[in-house]
Amino acid sequence: MSEDLQQKIKEQGDLVRKLKAEKASKDQGSSSKASYNEFITTPELESLNLYFQDNSYISSYILTDLDMMLYGILSAHSSKLTSYTNLSRWFHHIKAVANSDKLIKPDLNRLRNSLNCSSPKSISTSSISYLNKQIDEEVAKLKALKLEAGVDAKPANAAPKGSPKKGGGNAPDSKSSGGKLILKTAKGTRDYEPSQMAVREKVFGKITEIFKLHGAETIETPVFELKEVLTGKYGEDSKLIYDLADQGGEILALRYDLTVPFARYCAMNKVDRIKRYHIAKVYRRDNPSIARGRLREFYQCDFDIAGAYDAMLPDAECVKIVDQILSSVDVGKFVIKVNHRMILDGIFEVCGVPNSMFRTICSAVDKLDKSPWEEVKREMVSEKGLDEAAADRIGEYVQKAGGLPLIDELLQGDLAKSKIAKQGLEDMKLLLKYCELYNCSENVSFDLSLARGLDYYTGVIYEAVLCGDSVDDKGEPITVGSVAGGGRYDGLVGMFDPKHRSVPCVGVSIGIERLFSIMEANMTKNQSKVRTVETQVYVVTAQKGLIEERIKIVAELWGAGIKCEHSYKLNPKMLKQLQDCEDTGVPLAVVIGESEIAGGIVKIRNIESREEVEVKRADMVQVLKERLGLL
Amino acid sequence: MSEDLQQKIKEQGDLVRKLKAEKASKDQGSSSKASYNEFITTPELESLNLYFQDNSYISSYILTDLDMMLYGILSAHSSKLTSYTNLSRWFHHIKAVANSDKLIKPDLNRLRNSLNCSSPKSISTSSISYLNKQIDEEVAKLKALKLEAGVDAKPANAAPKGSPKKGGGNAPDSKSSGGKLILKTAKGTRDYEPSQMAVREKVFGKITEIFKLHGAETIETPVFELKEVLTGKYGEDSKLIYDLADQGGEILALRYDLTVPFARYCAMNKVDRIKRYHIAKVYRRDNPSIARGRLREFYQCDFDIAGAYDAMLPDAECVKIVDQILSSVDVGKFVIKVNHRMILDGIFEVCGVPNSMFRTICSAVDKLDKSPWEEVKREMVSEKGLDEAAADRIGEYVQKAGGLPLIDELLQGDLAKSKIAKQGLEDMKLLLKYCELYNCSENVSFDLSLARGLDYYTGVIYEAVLCGDSVDDKGEPITVGSVAGGGRYDGLVGMFDPKHRSVPCVGVSIGIERLFSIMEANMTKNQSKVRTVETQVYVVTAQKGLIEERIKIVAELWGAGIKCEHSYKLNPKMLKQLQDCEDTGVPLAVVIGESEIAGGIVKIRNIESREEVEVKRADMVQVLKERLGLL
Repeated sequence: MSEDLQQKIKEQGDLVRKLKAEKASKDQGSSSKASYNEFITTPELESLNLYFQDNSYISSYILTDLDMMLYGILSAHSSKLTSYTNLSRWFHHIKAVANSDKLIKPDLNRLRNSLNCSSPKSISTSSISYLNKQIDEEVAKLKALKLEAGVDAKPANAAPKGSPKKGGGNAPDSKSSGGKLILKTAKGTRDYEPSQMAVREKVFGKITEIFKLHGAETIETPVFELKEVLTGKYGEDSKLIYDLADQGGEILALRYDLTVPFARYCAMNKVDRIKRYHIAKVYRRDNPSIARGRLREFYQCDFDIAGAYDAMLPDAECVKIVDQILSSVDVGKFVIKVNHRMILDGIFEVCGVPNSMFRTICSAVDKLDKSPWEEVKREMVSEKGLDEAAADRIGEYVQKAGGLPLIDELLQGDLAKSKIAKQGLEDMKLLLKYCELYNCSENVSFDLSLARGLDYYTGVIYEAVLCGDSVDDKGEPITVGSVAGGGRYDGLVGMFDPKHRSVPCVGVSIGIERLFSIMEANMTKNQSKVRTVETQVYVVTAQKGLIEERIKIVAELWGAGIKCEHSYKLNPKMLKQLQDCEDTGVPLAVVIGESEIAGGIVKIRNIESREEVEVKRADMVQVLKERLGLL
Repeated sequence: MSEDLQQKIKEQGDLVRKLKAEKASKDQGSSSKASYNEFITTPELESLNLYFQDNSYISSYILTDLDMMLYGILSAHSSKLTSYTNLSRWFHHIKAVANSDKLIKPDLNRLRNSLNCSSPKSISTSSISYLNKQIDEEVAKLKALKLEAGVDAKPANAAPKGSPKKGGGNAPDSKSSGGKLILKTAKGTRDYEPSQMAVREKVFGKITEIFKLHGAETIETPVFELKEVLTGKYGEDSKLIYDLADQGGEILALRYDLTVPFARYCAMNKVDRIKRYHIAKVYRRDNPSIARGRLREFYQCDFDIAGAYDAMLPDAECVKIVDQILSSVDVGKFVIKVNHRMILDGIFEVCGVPNSMFRTICSAVDKLDKSPWEEVKREMVSEKGLDEAAADRIGEYVQKAGGLPLIDELLQGDLAKSKIAKQGLEDMKLLLKYCELYNCSENVSFDLSLARGLDYYTGVIYEAVLCGDSVDDKGEPITVGSVAGGGRYDGLVGMFDPKHRSVPCVGVSIGIERLFSIMEANMTKNQSKVRTVETQVYVVTAQKGLIEERIKIVAELWGAGIKCEHSYKLNPKMLKQLQDCEDTGVPLAVVIGESEIAGGIVKIRNIESREEVEVKRADMVQVLKERLGLL
């Protein structure tokens, strides 16, 4: 066993012991008269704050029972949270999502029922259950480490009981077979079963149709790239890149997004003009918490326009395409926020931010969608050392949002003294005008707080957010995380080109995973059952010994392009066959028995109405096609 | 720099020097009176034999110029090759493929022209050119290693001149930027451009349609699995599995096929009955040779039926689906070979093979599609120590192929004395009967030489091969590599299930990459241009300053579901816009100028015929929909 592994096992063991001790003291506490205030102690808040330190809220962030439970507990203490930056950011994110949770899943109610979260006592119980979950998780990790080291360990019953069998992330029913095999998927990944795939295909189909409406073509790049292609493109997030093992060859890594491979593609194939879409999975080794259900493998749908064109024409088409996609998938109201990197830089300039601090102040502004201005200001002043007066002036700008009148106002004011800000504002004016002509401006908001994390944006930036149905205490609609984002990146292709020849690009990426969840939830709400097969006809035999006749009919129907199935049993029961039709939604059955064969006929049965008609065997295909609308 | 890396650089340097020395001596040789016999020396043949030792011929094996060149040289010496096992196996594989190369690509002719391979002298030249290529390759590897180590190296002009820009594998125009960045895709992977994607989507569409015709649903599993899920499933090929870097968590690996993840899915989700298809990429770190263009990332299309059913009913459907898919994609004649593991085991039993040698003798039989019987026999006797009489008896069986009459003949003979052979033959008889009923038996051949490499098959096995148009010297059609394979694997799910509960499964995997190549070649042959976009209408402005009018029309057409585009230039030239339509195959244009706007009309232009009609602006959408057949 390597020393490294030994050390890991030791550390993990310490952690488990620590958590168990914590739980023991909590158990004691809960048997005494527990109250709200006793539960949420300062050390607990501090530890939670630490826990959420490196939590990210990318679009694949998926709400878990644990989130909802903790949120339920903390809601009663929200006033206390302001001094805990990370915890507070997490809390506001969950608040936004939780308020529209009927859109996502009735988890909150299920959780409340199962935990009986109504009395102070039970809240304390649920805090223990939280600890229990954490202990189970850490014990599982310890066992996995021991297994890896070859230390004998009994099968880990790692996951908390009562978790759904097919929840995100690892299968909770991890089992060990022969003392070794753990039956699960890799951390942060999951399987998709047929009913989930059916919804996914529907959404992909709609999105692809809209991409093609705009004349886009598609390309494909490998799932892994040379590591050096990816390095230096994602800022702090680079640590989330998945590396492949070096087996005496190249240093490779799984793609982190589709934009950087696209830029590499353009540079390598000397493409200087293309409108392409690409729907594929990307990989991010995000916060390795099993219970939080954050996915490490997820789809992105990208649309990008590369080429040197007239100002804002491709940029406006990107806004239009997001508008069309979000309108088509029935996710309720949404806002497409737009801003411009040159406007932000102009603001920093006129507010007296030193040039060298532009990027770091920009990434502070980026947090405004999660945190209140006061907190962002504190980060600028205390953490990053910006002059307070400068921060205040920035604050006045970045809290503005509006449309053409706001742009005109800004063009009249101090900001317009900055050359780059003026250029940005003129661009923005043109963009909004084109959006009006494209008939999508009612969903577009010029929002000066939008900054976007990635380094490579150079012009217009976008972010689309869904508005829940609910409003906050000021009557403002509450927004639900980002579902699309993008912008102009004129320098990225040049970073790959040996001669630094630049190809201007602009594009958007649709965060499809959240759209899937919403559509799945909608379908559950409407109790609409998803068909996972398209079978149109089931060939049923009414007596034994008719397998040959059955196969002949099936072959004939397949030959005619009719989607059809029959039983894989030689002599299936009539009722079982009809039941199969009902279960999978097959509309029609062809029924044959000895008398039908003798009479040269078949019966065609409507599964729903149970009505049957006899048709000549020779007319069967024709009649079926008529009834299926295939003619 | 690590010692390991230093060592690698040293070894690579030695190799380059050795090759250069070899070339120098060859240069001398060619300036003297070179003849065939002087070129193909025994040491050279030995070294080539060694070179092909670990070469595999999986379905993604793609023919390169280098193959064809070497094949051209060796054809004149085929009699000498018999004693070089690996070289001979390679030669026979290429021979099969080369004879139908017009199906694949006119590489052979291009190669002959460019190398002028007609006189003995030029053959000798081409052998030097072969060495040149090898030197270039190894120099490139050396430079890559030095780059990795940070040693300053000039941009490597690694690839042979004249390679196509977009060939398989790495981009030959590897460049170094700032002394560091090598602009290429990972070894053995490639990008697909829009025209290639268009063909792929067409093939995928056809195959998916056939899967759905059979009532199949689809699932998705992650691209990587826990390493232990994959280990012990692929025999010797396990060394080709791609590992991910261990970053203090789980040991992960990219999937090698779709069958093992499917079995893991069934066990984990307690699925004991499903008919599913899965189209996705798999990863095999095969022979790392840049110039050979073997792909390490490629698609598989799998169809599997899991569940306990009556004998041969699902097995026959798998044959039928392969028959339908290969018939639908226009690849010429094909044969679906079928055999049964129990028949093979029965043969070994009656021929006196010790039980412990069944699997190793089976994998010798598996080579019969690439090597003549004499060679396979030699492997059995000399390498594996089988009694020669036993090998001879096996030889009599495994060279048989036929249909129902052959089965009846075998049922009458010695083989039927083996209980398992008898069971296998009865199964096979039923399978062929069902194939007849399914109307696909004319493409099915019961072939006793079919063995399939993988360990997990337990019953029926399949392999589909294309027949080239050409015949060999005995008048037999020459087969082109495998395009589909599969079989029954009743034990695999049980390997994952904690209680070893077994789920019988049978399935086939379509080797889609070869079908793509063939379809691409067919399209080139028929000079049919692939459209990469589906744009139906292009909105053209005839004068300057009409961008707003243009955008309004485009938005209206998108709203009506008409696929449409316009220029991203404010004032594009009329001719340029029409040219764009012709280039991308757009059938119709809406043309507007000032007079049209004033008159409340638009012109609708047929791009091909150049005929124009005027219609009222208000009727535009209706008329376009009529002409596009959208009503």
